[in-house]
Amino acid sequence: RINGDRLWESLMEMAKIGPGVAGGNNRQTLTDADKEGRELFARWCEEAGLTLGVDEMGTMFARREGEDPNLDPVYVGSHLDTQPTGGKYDGVLGVLGGLELVRTLNDLGIKTKRPIVVTNWTNEEGTRFAPAMLASGVFAGMHERDWAYDRVDAEGKRFGDELERIGWKGPEKVGARKIHAMFELHIEQGPILEAEGKDIGVVTHGQGLWWLEVTLTGKEAHTGSTPMNMRVNAGLGMARVTEAVHRIAMAHQPNAVGAVGQANVYPNSRNVIPGKAVFTIDIRSPELDKLTSMRTQIEAEAARIAEELGLGLKIEPTGHFDPVTFDENCVKAVRDAAERLGYSHRNIVSGAGHDACWVNRVAPTAMVMCPCVDGLSHNEAEDISKEWATAGADVLFHAVVETAGI
Amino acid sequence: RINGDRLWESLMEMAKIGPGVAGGNNRQTLTDADKEGRELFARWCEEAGLTLGVDEMGTMFARREGEDPNLDPVYVGSHLDTQPTGGKYDGVLGVLGGLELVRTLNDLGIKTKRPIVVTNWTNEEGTRFAPAMLASGVFAGMHERDWAYDRVDAEGKRFGDELERIGWKGPEKVGARKIHAMFELHIEQGPILEAEGKDIGVVTHGQGLWWLEVTLTGKEAHTGSTPMNMRVNAGLGMARVTEAVHRIAMAHQPNAVGAVGQANVYPNSRNVIPGKAVFTIDIRSPELDKLTSMRTQIEAEAARIAEELGLGLKIEPTGHFDPVTFDENCVKAVRDAAERLGYSHRNIVSGAGHDACWVNRVAPTAMVMCPCVDGLSHNEAEDISKEWATAGADVLFHAVVETAGI
Ligand SMILES: NC(=O)NCCC(=O)O
Ligand SMILES: NC(=O)NCCC(=O)O
Repeated sequence: RINGDRLWESLMEMAKIGPGVAGGNNRQTLTDADKEGRELFARWCEEAGLTLGVDEMGTMFARREGEDPNLDPVYVGSHLDTQPTGGKYDGVLGVLGGLELVRTLNDLGIKTKRPIVVTNWTNEEGTRFAPAMLASGVFAGMHERDWAYDRVDAEGKRFGDELERIGWKGPEKVGARKIHAMFELHIEQGPILEAEGKDIGVVTHGQGLWWLEVTLTGKEAHTGSTPMNMRVNAGLGMARVTEAVHRIAMAHQPNAVGAVGQANVYPNSRNVIPGKAVFTIDIRSPELDKLTSMRTQIEAEAARIAEELGLGLKIEPTGHFDPVTFDENCVKAVRDAAERLGYSHRNIVSGAGHDACWVNRVAPTAMVMCPCVDGLSHNEAEDISKEWATAGADVLFHAVVETAGI
Repeated sequence: RINGDRLWESLMEMAKIGPGVAGGNNRQTLTDADKEGRELFARWCEEAGLTLGVDEMGTMFARREGEDPNLDPVYVGSHLDTQPTGGKYDGVLGVLGGLELVRTLNDLGIKTKRPIVVTNWTNEEGTRFAPAMLASGVFAGMHERDWAYDRVDAEGKRFGDELERIGWKGPEKVGARKIHAMFELHIEQGPILEAEGKDIGVVTHGQGLWWLEVTLTGKEAHTGSTPMNMRVNAGLGMARVTEAVHRIAMAHQPNAVGAVGQANVYPNSRNVIPGKAVFTIDIRSPELDKLTSMRTQIEAEAARIAEELGLGLKIEPTGHFDPVTFDENCVKAVRDAAERLGYSHRNIVSGAGHDACWVNRVAPTAMVMCPCVDGLSHNEAEDISKEWATAGADVLFHAVVETAGI
């Protein structure tokens, strides 16, 4: 069994870096806070006797040698970056759960057959630089490295430049590593496990996703002296598309979600009819048909609304993955571990995207989930109990060690 | 007749200060650019032999002495501040038209019976600090001076502090001046005069207005893993209220307008359901009944939407004026001037609010309007012809001199 107190202490220590405004964290990718978080994690890895490699996307790989260094390692990990108003556990639990597993092996003096590599994937959240899971996506060959470098944040800063600025652009070619298997522990970020009183979610599938960025172009004009029939109101268009996204997601129930997360109008002045609106749409489903159908309907509806209001329309996809089916053997290793340790569990579909979803394309992969309070995540109030964290890390430990061999 | 070339040159000179990004201006109130604009205007006033007074709200009063210094002066003016993406003429034409009128009197060696005071009212636009027409509102006794000082911009900066920072908080008690009459020249900011080919709008009335600031409070949550029925989506609420404002304004046609100008969601992240939305509503009508009815319906509809979605709701009025009827004699002076000079003209209702609307409460007031291209204003592309500007300033000149007496 892993040391739940030690794991919790490390979680609390990491949460001091990039504090939020309401008890959570703002440690967005490639910020100074991210840099500080990486430094702390690197120090902990060194103290645990691990050897650190860093790739050209800034992803950190901390290796514990195996009895046979020539065997492909078992990977474990998640991400240390957070939402602008994020929680203390989303991603962090998976990285520090991996570290705890290694610390426990050190305590027990156990050397696994295969090496174990604890990983911190760069830019999982995708808020500052879309798309999400950017580094694991490059690792899995889904994106070009240089395309990733050219992603820009809201202030126009390039991913590549910011990575260099914080000093974490490594020498290693992205995706060069051979992976025997990979396991990711993550909080559920949804309400199911808590509601059913289950300790562990055995993740069998992941939802597919489309991110669309919409730009509507109208005409800035005076709110007082412009007659209603002369208005070309981009803000009104944004409102109608926002409602359409909701309506279309509801029409695809069950197993479908949709919302507008970012919403901006220009010039954003009380007495100016918005001349431009830029906003993002996030739609997901574990069923490819529904995902495709939602996108088609939303694009058609946006075109209809733009025409109706006389607006210019541009829709740019900024993120996408198909629904995921995790590796049968890895999933079994997770289920067996939960069973062996006596934790209650159930199969579950991941509502969120995870680095494991991309890695699953190039190596056998599975995920362990633990409950979170009220299903709340991407919120500073995100919360879990020490017991949930411990159970999750215990199952991760057993699944990884089982797969790495002793 | 005034000197149209000289007026146009001054307009172009002023437009160099606080340039916009698309040929217009960003000279928002109490910014460094506003300070620079004031300095240029003050220099021009000095060169024209005027004596400058500044009140505690930063409003500038440039006086040309009359034959009888004991008679109450005739005031003329408007504002030099602009929208964040504003035009070169909105407000500026009224101030520099007043200056041109004085320069013409100087050229002709005419001394009017009453003094003439050219005025630059502080913060007419109201975008940075709501409400609009703030300094003229304090002057007319509609707001307390200290309440005005406490208005804050989006960054939390106080009006009073920013006024001091740019060095234009004057010693004069606000509203202490006696006004015989006041005239304001302004571009129409609407399409009517251009469409009908009229040189001059004789402004008989002004629309009434309500500005409402709405805050909707939901729950930040993950866009992927939060089931549709557990969402408390403040952005969706904002969309529905935006649509309701439009629908209700349309139901009050003719003589009513309504729109949402500012729209912000928080944390404004692609994969977070907005937990908060803050936006502004601008509704107007020249008919008090319609204005009141729109406000009532919008507030009821917002309450219904908030209830339906489980959102918290706060509605705060941040600006208001009743419909305005301008002074009969002043309006006649404007009409007579247009007639005498041979300009085509028609009566018109001002769609926008103006400093003249507040001053009208404490002194006889009227307005002169000139056309603008496509009725476009609050847009960097706002445009007028030199001929339109000249005609407007000519009519202003005659109405003022007539009222001041020679
Ligand atoms: N787990 C998680 O929140 N990942 C961010 C990408 C997503 O929005 O699903
Ligand atoms: N004239 C003008 O645009 N004034 C600003 C206040 C308003 O929005 O009416």
